[in-house]
Amino acid sequence: MITALAGGVGAARFLRGLVQVVAPAAVTAVVNTGDDDHFHGLLVCPDLDTVIYTLAGAENPELGWGLRDETFASMDALDRYGLPTWFRLGDRDLATHLFRAEGLRAARSLSAVTREISAAWGVDVRVLPMTDDPVGTRITVDDGRELRMQEWFVRDRAEPPVGAVRFEGAEAALPAPGVLEAIAAAETILVCPSNPIISIGPILAVPGVRDALRARRDHVVAVSPIIAGKTVKGPADRLMADLGLEPSCVGIARSYADFCAALVIDDADVDRVDDVEREGVRAVVTDTLMRDSRIAAALARHSLAAVA
Amino acid sequence: MITALAGGVGAARFLRGLVQVVAPAAVTAVVNTGDDDHFHGLLVCPDLDTVIYTLAGAENPELGWGLRDETFASMDALDRYGLPTWFRLGDRDLATHLFRAEGLRAARSLSAVTREISAAWGVDVRVLPMTDDPVGTRITVDDGRELRMQEWFVRDRAEPPVGAVRFEGAEAALPAPGVLEAIAAAETILVCPSNPIISIGPILAVPGVRDALRARRDHVVAVSPIIAGKTVKGPADRLMADLGLEPSCVGIARSYADFCAALVIDDADVDRVDDVEREGVRAVVTDTLMRDSRIAAALARHSLAAVA
Repeated sequence: MITALAGGVGAARFLRGLVQVVAPAAVTAVVNTGDDDHFHGLLVCPDLDTVIYTLAGAENPELGWGLRDETFASMDALDRYGLPTWFRLGDRDLATHLFRAEGLRAARSLSAVTREISAAWGVDVRVLPMTDDPVGTRITVDDGRELRMQEWFVRDRAEPPVGAVRFEGAEAALPAPGVLEAIAAAETILVCPSNPIISIGPILAVPGVRDALRARRDHVVAVSPIIAGKTVKGPADRLMADLGLEPSCVGIARSYADFCAALVIDDADVDRVDDVEREGVRAVVTDTLMRDSRIAAALARHSLAAVA
Repeated sequence: MITALAGGVGAARFLRGLVQVVAPAAVTAVVNTGDDDHFHGLLVCPDLDTVIYTLAGAENPELGWGLRDETFASMDALDRYGLPTWFRLGDRDLATHLFRAEGLRAARSLSAVTREISAAWGVDVRVLPMTDDPVGTRITVDDGRELRMQEWFVRDRAEPPVGAVRFEGAEAALPAPGVLEAIAAAETILVCPSNPIISIGPILAVPGVRDALRARRDHVVAVSPIIAGKTVKGPADRLMADLGLEPSCVGIARSYADFCAALVIDDADVDRVDDVEREGVRAVVTDTLMRDSRIAAALARHSLAAVA
């Protein structure tokens, strides 16, 4: 049994590598839902969907959410009504959100609906939302306005410098059924190469999760999403800097040190091994840039070995 | 000022003719909402949309609802989730339902949202739902089951013989703002060539509407949707027969006689003039088969003249 904490694109690629080296059914992915938001009345869960679509080989490689080979006839038609359509929902992706909305309206939990979506896509990894309760990442930007995650990330292209991040609703949220158990029972717990603040951060903010990880610290290994001080994709480096964290694998080690025994860092960061280990986290050096799924599989194998 | 009671396709074609002979802004269409239903959590108003889309020249001529040149990527994608998709919502049409849902959720009335949809399509006819309250046409079929209107009409292709029809919620419904006023103030009130039972029937079932029409009887003219005992499209003839009404222009005259002074019947029914007039309704004979919009315009002109 392997449990992985996951955000969106980077995590999904890593998980696709992981299921080449362990049986998919042995993997539980605990996925960030702090990015979730309502668009046109439909709850959109970008990270859950990215993980499922990617494991199904159907993800959209450009947008970072949604399905590949999409059409956008509904969004284009919404323009007529003057509604904001900066969060582009594809026509086929809309079906997922319609299905999810229908399930939630019928009082099924997000976990239950997510299980159904996974099954519909033939995904054998057990995909769990971090919580069934609403948690919303809120970004205070430099002019003092507090934005919803997708307003900052998609609408404003993550450009405004960030003064603070909080996770609305997190204090009152319960871990989704199975989350704490999956952490407690896993042979290895992987922290995927995701944004530590807005992808892994919300998961850690769900009461009980960080404590559960601390209790399993010797079995927790993270993969640094930062290579030579830069993210492969997304704003993690700038966001870390804005919030006073060193944007490097060392900053990652410092953030995770209380619950994480080992950190996988890139060959490009070989000179930072001592700095990482000074944080109390064992460093494992390998190629972490997942240019293809063979490299992702090798990275997963190295990660598992780091705490074996 | 002209007020028209309208169902779907037949009414929409008639209205398209009408706006060639009177200024669109002088026309108020009071539209059946008994066909409305929720699909995937979205309120779909087939008759309202058909009237608006047709007046905008964008209607789907095959389906009887929705937009022309549609794609159905969302519906095809919903098949993956095993949801019933017999009510085919096009991708662009979905945008209308998403917009409507968003408006209703924001506590705007169906009237208000309908006005916004009309405006977005550049429709100058004032399109009013018969009521802002939920009214649902229910069809009891021969085996005793009560079906929702669209289950019978679309899913079951209007095939099961009908034992009874009722309009759930009608007793408690209020006419939408402006409906009674539009009837009271109109120079002429037109009853479009729509199904008398399931298109005009729900409008008449809204408390106050039938009395308002009776008070203006001399100014009310209907167009028979039945030509030589047959409907042009749809199940009106069979439905009338199932419910013990003569499926003919005479049956229409009998149904409407209490509030309607004149009935426009087709040339093919010239031998029924005396039978119609025996019901106390003046018969006007002309070409009622709207093969093109020139004929629809002539039909509108004849209809207006009938009670001028």
